[in-house]
Parts: sequence; C-alpha cells; structure tokens
Amino acid sequence: MGELIKGKPVADKITEDVKLEVEELNKKGIFPKLQIIRVGEREDDISYERGALKRMSTCGILTDVKTLPADICQDDFIKEVKKSNEDTSVHGILIFRPLPKQIDENIVKYIVDPKKDMDCFNPVNVAKVTEGDKTGYAPCTPSAVMEILKYYNVDLTGKNVVVLGRSMVVGKPQALLLLQENATVTICHSKTKEIAKIASAADVVIAAIGKAKMVGKEFVKDGAVVIDVGINVDENGNLCGDVKTDECLEVASLITPVPAGVGSVTTSVLAKHVVKACKSAI
Amino acid sequence: MGELIKGKPVADKITEDVKLEVEELNKKGIFPKLQIIRVGEREDDISYERGALKRMSTCGILTDVKTLPADICQDDFIKEVKKSNEDTSVHGILIFRPLPKQIDENIVKYIVDPKKDMDCFNPVNVAKVTEGDKTGYAPCTPSAVMEILKYYNVDLTGKNVVVLGRSMVVGKPQALLLLQENATVTICHSKTKEIAKIASAADVVIAAIGKAKMVGKEFVKDGAVVIDVGINVDENGNLCGDVKTDECLEVASLITPVPAGVGSVTTSVLAKHVVKACKSAI
Repeated sequence: MGELIKGKPVADKITEDVKLEVEELNKKGIFPKLQIIRVGEREDDISYERGALKRMSTCGILTDVKTLPADICQDDFIKEVKKSNEDTSVHGILIFRPLPKQIDENIVKYIVDPKKDMDCFNPVNVAKVTEGDKTGYAPCTPSAVMEILKYYNVDLTGKNVVVLGRSMVVGKPQALLLLQENATVTICHSKTKEIAKIASAADVVIAAIGKAKMVGKEFVKDGAVVIDVGINVDENGNLCGDVKTDECLEVASLITPVPAGVGSVTTSVLAKHVVKACKSAI
Repeated sequence: MGELIKGKPVADKITEDVKLEVEELNKKGIFPKLQIIRVGEREDDISYERGALKRMSTCGILTDVKTLPADICQDDFIKEVKKSNEDTSVHGILIFRPLPKQIDENIVKYIVDPKKDMDCFNPVNVAKVTEGDKTGYAPCTPSAVMEILKYYNVDLTGKNVVVLGRSMVVGKPQALLLLQENATVTICHSKTKEIAKIASAADVVIAAIGKAKMVGKEFVKDGAVVIDVGINVDENGNLCGDVKTDECLEVASLITPVPAGVGSVTTSVLAKHVVKACKSAI
C-alpha cells in the first residue's frame, strides 16, 4: 500500500523559504512585485488568480492585477504588456492563457520581457528550458512536479521516468526538466502503442494527458512513484486527475492526489519565480 | 542480415528538389544566398565549409564566406553578424561553432536573425523546435536524420525510438523532431542505467553519444533501424561512428554507415533551409 503525498507541505516549505527571502529584500528597500494580466473574466483564470494573490500575500510579494476587456485588440494588449515590461516596480508578469482569438499568441509571446516572464510564455524561456539553462523560467506546473519529487526525496538520476503527454504546458518541458536531473525519460502520447506496458516499466510516472482516470494500476510498476498532473471533471461532476488514485495506491510507493496534489504547489513556484526575477533585476 | 543505407541518395534527392526550387526563384530574379561566418581556421570548419560550398553550388545557391580573425573581440563579431542580418541579398547565415572563448555564445546567439539562422543557433529557433513549429530551422544534423528516415520509408508513428545522447546539437532536438512525427521517444545518456537493454527494446535507435563504437548488437532489437550520428576516430586513426556497424548489421534491418551516412546529408539540409528562408523573405 502506497503513500498519498500531498502538495501542501511542499507549497508550505517553498512559501516559507520565499517569505524569508522577501523579508531580506524588504530590509534593503526592495519589494518584489507580480503583475497579473488577465483578459476577460474566465472562471478558471479568476480562480487561479485568487489562489495566486493569496500566496503572494503570504509570501509578502506585492501584486497588481491588470484586467483587460475580453474584446481588447492585439495592439492595445501589446501596449499593456509593454507598460508592465517597462515598469521597474514590476519584477514578474503572469499572463493568463489561452488568450482570446483576436490576439495571436505567436506574436505576443515575443513581447513579454523574458526576464519578467514567470510562466515560460516567451520563446527565450522555452529555449532555456530546452537547453537546461537555469537562468530562465520553466512553466509553473512542471516545475511544481520537480519540487514535489525533490521534497519527497525521489532521486531521479538514472531513473526511468515516463511522461504521459507532450503538451507545451506540461509534457515537453516536464521531460526536459527531468532530463536535466539525469533521469532517463520516455515521452508517451496519444499515438503511443502499449502505453500501459511502457509506463509500467518506469520508476516514476508523470500523468499529464488530460483524460479523467485514464491511468489504472496496469500503468504502475510495483513501488513506482506516480505524479498526477491532470485536472479533469469526472462523470459525477467532481474534480479528478488522470490517475485512478485508489487503485494505483495499491501498487505505487508514492502518489499525488487530485485535488490537493500538484495544483496546490504551482502558486508557490510562481512566488519563487517572482523573487528570482526580483533578485536578477538588482 | 540488414541493409546498409547510405546518405548519398537522400542528399541527391534533396539537392535535386532544392535545385528545381532555386531555378524557379531565379526565373523571378530571386537568388538564394548563404553567408558563412567562420572565425579562425579550424580544420573541421574548413572541411565542412568546403562541402557546404560545393553543395550550394550544385543547388545553384550563392555563397559568401566571411572569415574573421581567431582573436576577434565580441563587439566586432557582433557587428559582422549584424551586417549579414541587414544584408537583404543574404537569406541564410551559418556561423561555425564553437566560437573562440572571448565570444560568449550565450550573448551572440540572440544576435543572429532567427529568420536567417540556418542551424538553430538563435533561441527563437530552439523554442520553435521544442514547440513543433515548423516555421523555424532545426539543427542540420537531427534534420538530416529525419530526412534519412523519411527517404527510407521508416514510418515513425507509434514507434518506440531511443535517442542515445542529450546534446543541444543532436540529442534533444532529435527527440523533439521525432516526437513531432508521433514517435514514442526515450532519451538515454551517460547516467542511464541498463542503456543496452533500453535501446534493445526500440524499433529505431539513434546513436548520438560521441563514443567510438559504443553501440554493439546488444543494443539492437531484431529488425530495428539504427542511425549512427557519431563522428569519432578509432584506435587506428580511422573515422568511425558510435555504432559497431558490422556487428549490428547482423540484427538491424537498416543501418547508416559512418562515413557516408548522416554526415553526407547535412549540407543538403542546409541548402533546403536557405531556400526556405529565401522564400519566407519574399
């Protein structure tokens, strides 16, 4: 019987560390600040924003939310991003995505200052993640997974890790971050054959495929670690991950739940990124 | 007994296609041109340059070689790159790497215009490879591997591909290009345990680890495809790959030799990139 490993203690530890760093900065008259840019009133965005604001406040990080109309044109959106780029009181910028259709992400992603880009929107940061250059900002979710693995002492060197999913939000950057920690990484996706068989050979399985309860115990080797990145809604309208948690607990050594797993660590990573950006700007 | 698959027919086919495209462009008064920037007189660079110039000439692509002194300072180097960026007669730029120590690649890589960057030096192109955005330019060597697989009808969808090596020149971009073609990709490296066992489960093995004849038949599943990207010198001073070619031929279905394998396709990919850049600039 495996152990359910929650995100909260990981988030608490990061928050505590960040808070101390912020206090040190404050003593020098430096006040780390996050600028959130939200277009429209999407429920997901507002819910994440609420969590992020609360976390920043706990860490002592200043925040400002720029709310832009859902029908804002691309030029005006770019102007707003540039204002935040130029605002020296702002150290980190978080732009909620996806952006509305009239805004071409392939254009605006180049606008946000890579030094302030907290969630790996700008290609400069994508390239840094690919290159293993730690001066950049990896996306918050795969970074949260790395924090969880570190906190629970899952050594990755030489371990076989299977990543289920190849999105730019999780799968691909996840694989690259794992590679940086010397894991042997396999990336599976919708076209993979015998996906359960491949996963069941792994020491660590990261599920980021976006299908409710797709990963059953046939995916899990005895004693493997399972990290569930999925956020889905099940047939009863309840939040659930990509993993059949109860079933996999029978074989896994460690497994993250949904909710209360990876998702609860992302805002702490965001806070950590803001302080990193603030220190780099000094 | 497997078949030795050479690079030449692949290079010839690409060259032929590129040549036709260049002829079409010439008819419209457009003349694709590659600018090579070489610092110093490194033998490897000069040898590759010779091959590249010959290939461009066969394709009808104009060339210019800018030779800079080995002790050029970073500022002067940057000025030269900018000149080529601004020269509208130049469509593609190839900068030989590694650059001498006084030039910080982490700075100058941002200078070369991503639209003219033929070998994935600029992070914009690294990010495009990561994102699977085909408007960019992947490095020539992993692109050559993809051309070989395509030419010899190796379907990659759902196939298990093991990449040996995680460099930015081959391993990582290779894995990302394979992922784009729907392969299930495993990346192995120096810290991988039981590397032969992992490779021997693969349908395709790409060896890019840089160790002379490291890959023996214990790495190769019966009927697997083996692509040898290594360029090494063996104990007798002869050029050899990462693969024990003769031994692996006994089990593989297809295998590329070294020399006369992947290496002979890279300049054709370069020519293809120059024409793509030229067409994009119209």
